[in-house]
Amino acid sequence: MDNVTKVFIEKPASDVFEAFVDPAKIGNFWFSSSSDRWEQGKTITLTYVEYNAELAIEILEVEPNEKIVFRWGANGEGHIVTILLRKMGNSNTLIEVTEAGFQENDENVVVQLLDNKEGWVFMLTCLKAYLEFGVTRLRTGLAK
Amino acid sequence: MDNVTKVFIEKPASDVFEAFVDPAKIGNFWFSSSSDRWEQGKTITLTYVEYNAELAIEILEVEPNEKIVFRWGANGEGHIVTILLRKMGNSNTLIEVTEAGFQENDENVVVQLLDNKEGWVFMLTCLKAYLEFGVTRLRTGLAK
Repeated sequence: MDNVTKVFIEKPASDVFEAFVDPAKIGNFWFSSSSDRWEQGKTITLTYVEYNAELAIEILEVEPNEKIVFRWGANGEGHIVTILLRKMGNSNTLIEVTEAGFQENDENVVVQLLDNKEGWVFMLTCLKAYLEFGVTRLRTGLAK
Repeated sequence: MDNVTKVFIEKPASDVFEAFVDPAKIGNFWFSSSSDRWEQGKTITLTYVEYNAELAIEILEVEPNEKIVFRWGANGEGHIVTILLRKMGNSNTLIEVTEAGFQENDENVVVQLLDNKEGWVFMLTCLKAYLEFGVTRLRTGLAK
């Protein structure tokens, strides 16, 4: 059972790719910081200073300007996230994020899927606002 | 089974309220047009010119700057949406949207809930970008 979210971004795929892998950019739309440039085989520490939270991800695969695959956590058991960047002409991109690993038999799976969907839609909309309009202050706006 | 989504908006509740009820404003963050000012007892036609779509809603309850309740459709059977605006000091608002009416036994209920969650998170993030930063061109960015 996968969660798939797709957003059009009116910027080239290289801009969308760099927003994730360049640690100077992630704080404009998602986590507050990223410990290193995302490259295949690295373990990256992501921080949410606003929520006093820190977590690791393992970068499993990177195809520049096309694809990023990572696993949440550093114990080899987290969900797998695949970010695909589909070029729409020279200046637009369809970004498609798939999170896989939900257990259909878990009694809380619907709540997990909904929380997960909420997070991805919010982040991707913040990314769109950042890349298209330079807006960088939406990212802490989701409430629980 | 309800879908609840909450977003902080750094604007007064009156600004958030007017964004929904004033037909001149909805096109900045959600539908392309709204047929009339939202007032209790009215049936409003909402149009998505980009998707060649039109639908009705029935406004069931309005408390200025605090609450809007409407039903999707005009046949009395649609889901009920409750928009609550909670003032956070004089200049900030927590907006909470609840859509009720999902049937737990429907075999497609999980897909319905996820699509619904996606729509609300996207719209509320577009609303935040519009009210806080004047960005009005995010609203057609979600892809299926």
